[in-house]
Amino acid sequence: MMYQGSFSVATPGRGSLLIGDQVYACVRDSGLATGIVLVFAHHTSASLILCENADPQVRADLERFMARLVPDGDPLFRHTDEGVDDMPAHVRSILTSNSLSLPLVDGRCDLGTWQGIYLWEHRQMPHQRRVSVTIYGES
Amino acid sequence: MMYQGSFSVATPGRGSLLIGDQVYACVRDSGLATGIVLVFAHHTSASLILCENADPQVRADLERFMARLVPDGDPLFRHTDEGVDDMPAHVRSILTSNSLSLPLVDGRCDLGTWQGIYLWEHRQMPHQRRVSVTIYGES
Amino acid sequence: MMYQGSFSVATPGRGSLLIGDQVYACVRDSGLATGIVLVFAHHTSASLILCENADPQVRADLERFMARLVPDGDPLFRHTDEGVDDMPAHVRSILTSNSLSLPLVDGRCDLGTWQGIYLWEHRQMPHQRRVSVTIYGES
Repeated sequence: MMYQGSFSVATPGRGSLLIGDQVYACVRDSGLATGIVLVFAHHTSASLILCENADPQVRADLERFMARLVPDGDPLFRHTDEGVDDMPAHVRSILTSNSLSLPLVDGRCDLGTWQGIYLWEHRQMPHQRRVSVTIYGES
Repeated sequence: MMYQGSFSVATPGRGSLLIGDQVYACVRDSGLATGIVLVFAHHTSASLILCENADPQVRADLERFMARLVPDGDPLFRHTDEGVDDMPAHVRSILTSNSLSLPLVDGRCDLGTWQGIYLWEHRQMPHQRRVSVTIYGES
Repeated sequence: MMYQGSFSVATPGRGSLLIGDQVYACVRDSGLATGIVLVFAHHTSASLILCENADPQVRADLERFMARLVPDGDPLFRHTDEGVDDMPAHVRSILTSNSLSLPLVDGRCDLGTWQGIYLWEHRQMPHQRRVSVTIYGES
């Protein structure tokens, strides 16, 4: 049996946002117990990550790492129509991922103790981001 | 219901190639309307990305970024039997991905407006690359 | 039809370990022939990669590359409670992936000739890592 749902996330600008509650609400809506959960971000400047969910410093460090690896305004980039953070946002998205595939066990996403589901906004300005959840499984 | 298909891509050397048409042809062949589409590249020197599909400069910038991050001929690398681009190709593949999992909605891949499906050839020489499409879904 | 199984991997510290045999054992246990195999690592300091499986130098080079890109003890990082390799392990995991989605064809993972399935331990100390295998398919 299959379920599809989606939700929108209002990002306040660059940074990672916990979206576990929205994903888990879709899982509950599905009524499915066992299967595969595909979480998908329909954008090229935002991505999805599984990140340590206990110490907020982890995501701050991650942000600093990416800012150094793919700096805004890097003269290497020519795709700059939308600003200095436009091309870095595309690169950051590609170095991470647009989707997460998660095992569904006993009606919940079977994540590790410290794995949280985050949407990572890579643009400096606020955006509305669409995330969909497709579940294939059994009840 | 399940569908499996595949196609071959002749790459002219390093660079990214739009393969959306081939993937969408598999989706149409499947006759399936709702589900999950797994696109998989059966190689360790080529990968799959969802990339901005409007401005070709984006992929040129991406190429320049990767050339700087994982330079051909880097003395760090000892796996050089097949040339200076051999090990960089493996690293590039691992920093991106061999697979894309996409939601299938109403008989089409439900991608964002600017998301195009690309095969990224990481070797300098032309290659034949095999890509398979597995779809799990309902008609 | 669906199958779920899991196994534990004792890592001797940082480095990549071939886990193909354990994944293939799950595939055989499932009795399924055609579908999608989701391999998932339930951790934020270990990841899964498809890597060239012929020359061990490839994984040594990969290790050297990551050690340079995300160095232990980098003063950029403030999340250091568990040691100099704690935050680098999170970054390495996010730059690679926690999951692999593989096509199942004729009862086996349809990988390319040189694609091996590896668990990449990113911490310096030995750990027990849990890996699960979820298969959706037909017999």
